[in-house]
Amino acid sequence: MRKNYLLTPGPTPIPPQVSEALARPIIHHRTPQFQEVIKEVSEGLKYIFQTKNDVFILASSGTGAMEAAVCNLLSPQDTALCIDGGKFGERWIEITKAYGINCQVIKVEWGKAVDPIEIEKVLKANPKIKAVFTTHCETSTGVVNDIQGIGAVVKESSAVLVVDAISGLGAIDLKSDDWFCDVVISGSQKGLMLPPGLGFISVSPKAFKMVEDCKNPRYYFDLKKAKKALDKTDTPFTPAIGLIIALAEAIKLMQQDGLENIFQRHKKMADATRAAVKALGLELFAPDAASDVVTAAKLPASIEGEKLVKTMRDTYGVTIAGGQDAMKGKLIRIAHMGYIAEFDIILGLSCLEKVLTQMGYKFPIGSGIKAAQEVFLK
Amino acid sequence: MRKNYLLTPGPTPIPPQVSEALARPIIHHRTPQFQEVIKEVSEGLKYIFQTKNDVFILASSGTGAMEAAVCNLLSPQDTALCIDGGKFGERWIEITKAYGINCQVIKVEWGKAVDPIEIEKVLKANPKIKAVFTTHCETSTGVVNDIQGIGAVVKESSAVLVVDAISGLGAIDLKSDDWFCDVVISGSQKGLMLPPGLGFISVSPKAFKMVEDCKNPRYYFDLKKAKKALDKTDTPFTPAIGLIIALAEAIKLMQQDGLENIFQRHKKMADATRAAVKALGLELFAPDAASDVVTAAKLPASIEGEKLVKTMRDTYGVTIAGGQDAMKGKLIRIAHMGYIAEFDIILGLSCLEKVLTQMGYKFPIGSGIKAAQEVFLK
Repeated sequence: MRKNYLLTPGPTPIPPQVSEALARPIIHHRTPQFQEVIKEVSEGLKYIFQTKNDVFILASSGTGAMEAAVCNLLSPQDTALCIDGGKFGERWIEITKAYGINCQVIKVEWGKAVDPIEIEKVLKANPKIKAVFTTHCETSTGVVNDIQGIGAVVKESSAVLVVDAISGLGAIDLKSDDWFCDVVISGSQKGLMLPPGLGFISVSPKAFKMVEDCKNPRYYFDLKKAKKALDKTDTPFTPAIGLIIALAEAIKLMQQDGLENIFQRHKKMADATRAAVKALGLELFAPDAASDVVTAAKLPASIEGEKLVKTMRDTYGVTIAGGQDAMKGKLIRIAHMGYIAEFDIILGLSCLEKVLTQMGYKFPIGSGIKAAQEVFLK
Repeated sequence: MRKNYLLTPGPTPIPPQVSEALARPIIHHRTPQFQEVIKEVSEGLKYIFQTKNDVFILASSGTGAMEAAVCNLLSPQDTALCIDGGKFGERWIEITKAYGINCQVIKVEWGKAVDPIEIEKVLKANPKIKAVFTTHCETSTGVVNDIQGIGAVVKESSAVLVVDAISGLGAIDLKSDDWFCDVVISGSQKGLMLPPGLGFISVSPKAFKMVEDCKNPRYYFDLKKAKKALDKTDTPFTPAIGLIIALAEAIKLMQQDGLENIFQRHKKMADATRAAVKALGLELFAPDAASDVVTAAKLPASIEGEKLVKTMRDTYGVTIAGGQDAMKGKLIRIAHMGYIAEFDIILGLSCLEKVLTQMGYKFPIGSGIKAAQEVFLK
């Protein structure tokens, strides 16, 4: 009978309309019925990506879409620039290296955003760079990068800008076209409020020229095949039909709210969460670049982070995330993204306060919640 | 209010217990709760694959798992043998070529099975062949290949045997280990009765040695990563959580029935369908190698196949498949696989008889159904 609550940066909770769609009888994908769905979600994704470019839907998780970006844009020995400010920035390095790409790296301290000027410098010094791989919201640290600023410098070079927006898309603003993002990647289990299993990739005409010239081997993720199929309102291989039908419902919900309202809701929840953790005497991990997607907070040295997360989840049913890699045991990460709302944040904080108290950390009980409530009242 | 019925060779209808699981609230994947699910489905898949080997679950459709086999086993310039007896045999050729592999081909006439002796000859003449890529049930033609016979000849060579069992697995017998199948591929939307979105791949120790030595670039489909994660009851990237939880339900249903009973049920449905199409005066497309998964029948020249399939689906709600590629418009393919049972076959035949009659084809109405009923009564 234990009730469970999910406040993790992916997967995020699923709205009932979307769950209902997942449970519907399946339909065949090579039918006019499913073509209607493809049409609808293709248009809807353009709205959410804020782009006129094609958005391809892959049956994969977000990492598959990241790989699609790498293996479709670059050939072995090509040069790329990867921005590494966390676990998901590192992933760009790993994937480009796997494909024999000459990978330049700007290493950014965990908890900081990259300075677009640094990117500009590297691009000027290395005119061979064909693609810049960036992360919008770095889920491992809670940092949001200045994609608008990065877009402004990358567009002055010959390189294309690739943005991993897996955890940011549909939660915080990303004007793909206005900010000159050539390729934007996302996944289904974050701002889009679906189970994981869909990857998305939008591709600008400039980037698509690179796809056509690219010499890396690929088949399942070949965007030429995806484009040829999408032009006929089809997919090259059996798509994840059920998830795509549910995506149509999720997009409808997002269109009803409107992107601007969605971003405002995320900002309010983030402000409230940040106020709460500060009121509890915890330190924001990314004070200068905190995203409105997930809040990372440093734990006092006296608190074992893994035990805190485990107790919240396994004793009380509230799942938040801990730190990853070097920050394992030292961080908590509370998501305020997707189908999460004001009172979910309050209940999550209530559980956090309870377990912190039980673990011997001293603060006036209710002080985190009060700080959050004050933000929500504004 | 039109009621819809699905008799296609993937996706197949979804049992209510599985639909219910798809609609459940999502859980996080890096939790003991999800580890329990991974444990359960890993064991369950071994039962269904009839193997002691690891079965890796990919967030992809079946083609992704096929690509995983190619890009993990072979390096550029390696030699492989592909058996091409239909659209999915061709896919092995396309994928191996995409990866720069020297691809030998045994071309088999559509509607026929490959003769294992042909494979033996080619293997003896080309000792460099490192892998033989085969198709268990060729969905495009309804043919079942003699994997047991093929396994017996491949094991005498140094090559590994790779079997695309996407549409056969869990519907017809495939003794992976006893028949010396090193790598077996499948997908979720066929015998396993799930929506599409999961790929499966089992790998023998002999094949896994090739994975370790393989020089092809890959990241998302890298089976070394999959193995390292599975050894810790984990997945390398965010898995398709919802589908995997539903898979646990589907496997439970299959274990309750038992593989032997499942295979018998498929055989009975196939016998009935074959008897029916013959009674209707149609010709089996693969009389000598008809699978118990999907029945392909040739239409009389007077009947436009695409119109027949379209009318059955769009006017009456019964979806069967037509012919593909060279057989477009000339075949119907009626699936009897997964969560399809006796009376579904009867209703499908009833719709087929109705539309054939409306299109001017002459036969005693009810004769196909009667032939099927007689088989089911036996």
